[in-house]
Amino acid sequence: MPVAYTPAEIAAIVGAQRTLGHTEAKVGDIASLAAAQPGDLSFLGNAKYRSQVPASRASVLLLPPDYPGEPGPDQVFLFVDHPSVALARLCSRIEQQLWPKPPPGIHPSAVVAATARIDPTASVGPLCVVEDAATIGPGTVLDASVCVGRGARLGEGCWVMPGCLVGSYCELGRRVRLQPGVIIGSDGFGYEFVQGRHEKVPQIGIVVIGDDVEIGANSTLDRARFSRTVVGEGTKIDNLVQVAHNVVIGRHCILCAQVGISGSTTVEDYVILGGQTGVGGHITIGKGSKAGGQTGISADVPPGSYLNGTPAIPYMLERRLQILHQRLPDLFKRVEALERRAE
Amino acid sequence: MPVAYTPAEIAAIVGAQRTLGHTEAKVGDIASLAAAQPGDLSFLGNAKYRSQVPASRASVLLLPPDYPGEPGPDQVFLFVDHPSVALARLCSRIEQQLWPKPPPGIHPSAVVAATARIDPTASVGPLCVVEDAATIGPGTVLDASVCVGRGARLGEGCWVMPGCLVGSYCELGRRVRLQPGVIIGSDGFGYEFVQGRHEKVPQIGIVVIGDDVEIGANSTLDRARFSRTVVGEGTKIDNLVQVAHNVVIGRHCILCAQVGISGSTTVEDYVILGGQTGVGGHITIGKGSKAGGQTGISADVPPGSYLNGTPAIPYMLERRLQILHQRLPDLFKRVEALERRAE
Amino acid sequence: MPVAYTPAEIAAIVGAQRTLGHTEAKVGDIASLAAAQPGDLSFLGNAKYRSQVPASRASVLLLPPDYPGEPGPDQVFLFVDHPSVALARLCSRIEQQLWPKPPPGIHPSAVVAATARIDPTASVGPLCVVEDAATIGPGTVLDASVCVGRGARLGEGCWVMPGCLVGSYCELGRRVRLQPGVIIGSDGFGYEFVQGRHEKVPQIGIVVIGDDVEIGANSTLDRARFSRTVVGEGTKIDNLVQVAHNVVIGRHCILCAQVGISGSTTVEDYVILGGQTGVGGHITIGKGSKAGGQTGISADVPPGSYLNGTPAIPYMLERRLQILHQRLPDLFKRVEALERRAE
Repeated sequence: MPVAYTPAEIAAIVGAQRTLGHTEAKVGDIASLAAAQPGDLSFLGNAKYRSQVPASRASVLLLPPDYPGEPGPDQVFLFVDHPSVALARLCSRIEQQLWPKPPPGIHPSAVVAATARIDPTASVGPLCVVEDAATIGPGTVLDASVCVGRGARLGEGCWVMPGCLVGSYCELGRRVRLQPGVIIGSDGFGYEFVQGRHEKVPQIGIVVIGDDVEIGANSTLDRARFSRTVVGEGTKIDNLVQVAHNVVIGRHCILCAQVGISGSTTVEDYVILGGQTGVGGHITIGKGSKAGGQTGISADVPPGSYLNGTPAIPYMLERRLQILHQRLPDLFKRVEALERRAE
Repeated sequence: MPVAYTPAEIAAIVGAQRTLGHTEAKVGDIASLAAAQPGDLSFLGNAKYRSQVPASRASVLLLPPDYPGEPGPDQVFLFVDHPSVALARLCSRIEQQLWPKPPPGIHPSAVVAATARIDPTASVGPLCVVEDAATIGPGTVLDASVCVGRGARLGEGCWVMPGCLVGSYCELGRRVRLQPGVIIGSDGFGYEFVQGRHEKVPQIGIVVIGDDVEIGANSTLDRARFSRTVVGEGTKIDNLVQVAHNVVIGRHCILCAQVGISGSTTVEDYVILGGQTGVGGHITIGKGSKAGGQTGISADVPPGSYLNGTPAIPYMLERRLQILHQRLPDLFKRVEALERRAE
Repeated sequence: MPVAYTPAEIAAIVGAQRTLGHTEAKVGDIASLAAAQPGDLSFLGNAKYRSQVPASRASVLLLPPDYPGEPGPDQVFLFVDHPSVALARLCSRIEQQLWPKPPPGIHPSAVVAATARIDPTASVGPLCVVEDAATIGPGTVLDASVCVGRGARLGEGCWVMPGCLVGSYCELGRRVRLQPGVIIGSDGFGYEFVQGRHEKVPQIGIVVIGDDVEIGANSTLDRARFSRTVVGEGTKIDNLVQVAHNVVIGRHCILCAQVGISGSTTVEDYVILGGQTGVGGHITIGKGSKAGGQTGISADVPPGSYLNGTPAIPYMLERRLQILHQRLPDLFKRVEALERRAE
């Protein structure tokens, strides 16, 4: 962490009620109670780690008001109502320092079409390309080497990180955050098999991303065959996720890394899919459903389901079947014994 | 869809035999019969949806000649021999309008080596890099921010989308389409374990991509250790697919998203691999074989197989085993009952 | 292979002890004994292929000193102590010719901050972006279109291929090789669920990559929530791999393509994970453990384990259970027979 704070600065940022102890150290990193070294800040976010506080080597500790112990030499206790909330406040401050918002305007090395509409408060980074009639909203930031296709529309307050593509005619809402290398609007994967060859089906739809969506590094979202591929407001997508054409993802979903969703499937609001889960095409995953890692879903899922396994079945049943599966050697022996007896 | 057509324009494009009804609407989107709104075009591509036509709110409908109904007010029926074919024709027209071919020539911001040979009818987009002795064929289009390595050769009529890399000495045939972020010619993953360390094995081969191949966004194809990694004519590869060094993929295959193929494996013609399928190294998947999603293939597969599961077994057997697997709780109870009786 | 050597040149490069036969051919490719064509070089690296030598069509063959046969017409035998080592030496030479190191200096099209410190022996390729206070070590090469974020530090002798991102404040050791499209330092995937919305948890840590690490194309490594995501010295990571925030990977590990590792997990030294393996969060995989392809690991793994399956179990047990699983139809029949008898 290339920034450092005195304990007094941290006390001010987190609004500490009370301070105990003294250190000359400036805090340059954050670590768990057990891992912290001198020069680090740590925190008691969960009461079950309370016994780790006395042995922690952290220079500064965020603690709840009722914590009874005493700091070591060269150590400072800062008492706050909610250490986790206090830490988040500190981290936000650090984040702003580490990633200061670039000044508005278009970097001279960017290639921006004359017909593009860039809000004067937006920032277009070095070596970006913005094509004809694209729109970049107020306060939106394009980091280095971002491509925005013809007619694409980015709303207010978006942050598009290096190497992303927002394909032609695709739309981002407000405060959308694209991690590096995201591809929005690659062609859907559609072919017709004609006389021994796969003939391409034109993919002329778009991708529409709702407000407050975040998408992880190198994930890919295909444009619709026609109409829209949709990601609903507040949904968060991790790295290396594949979203096929005409998929409709609801609001406030969580898609963990390397999930793949096949074409024309609907994922309703508040769904959570574990890492490497695969979802077949033309199905619906009901509201609030969850799937564990590596689940394979190929049929409709009712709302509120909790699934695991391939094919996906209820999580508790899957766990029970796994246990029975591992007892198969015993079962075979028992059946053999019964057969011997029956002879 | 940022284009709009009058019903008369659409009738001309699709070659309608007959027109019925009237609307002032211009058509700006395409949707299914059930989803269509006023201002949309829809179509009856499959007779089983015939009952949905009367309730469809589409402004313009493509229908077969024998469809007996009447349009609503502010609705137009266009009668064509094959509504699906007519729709494809319309979509192709829309595609050309949405993505007009860029003019030939080299964008002034591109960095092109003096020894590169760019056909005068080719188009090199903004911020591309073309290295020494690379060849770009007639009519080939490089979108923005494409890198073409030293000595790479791209044939006629290719379309390379933003952010792709065609690595040094690699070869694309004719009409190859690379979706955004594709990496052709990363190093194969080869090491020798020597004295506790993994020593790199040089990867000096190339990747050769046949005519009419399409490769999906952010997929990666490694160069051979020596000789060639090959993708045969007409094969289509979806997003986030991994093809390792010295893999040979035949003609007219389909690799769905997130498939991974390990080194030196051969995939024969007309093979179809479902999403997230993993294929081991040094094996052969016989001609025309299919695998469902998330299959794990680690041994040779005879031609014409249809597989699923990990390890991969015949699809119908896998389905049967899945059913029996879910009946394990019952089976354990039945064996217990037999044991009690036998006591 | 766009280079060609005479047999005499090859004999000199590999230090041949003895030469037998004659050919006018220049060698332009390398192939296995069975696949080689005239103009190719082949080699007898493994005694079990000895019987393939007489029929090999290669123009030049690397053979062990005791190989007794005679070359064909227009064919040359080169005798060397270790044909595989000799081949590696030849491949290294070819590699240097195919990828000559670019001259030191900053390409005029690169955008380099005034406060960045670029060693005079480093090379910054066309259309790279190097932000404030970043450090590029001696002899390090950035290929085209690489982005290096604010305050990032790259050690000596690294090779960063086209389109990579080294995010702000992240650190690469010495001789790190990033294949094209690698993302180092995307945000970790962390949210708190507050009043029906996922609120972002700031990710202010970094990624630290040890000496001699290689990372495959389009892989993504997230920065830590705070503190560090770590990849240890000598570890090799294949394409499309996901490493989440606060993961700590030891030294000399092998992560095959499409592996995914969830947050805060520790992978100890010399671990090998097969392709598409998924690893849960907050667990430890003990030193020297191995997992086959598509394994799903969601609990701690003791050192030296060899695992497969989802959930991961010992490899030999998994293989045995797979066999019993496929005998389920028989088992059900046998239980039915017992039941009929018992009636």
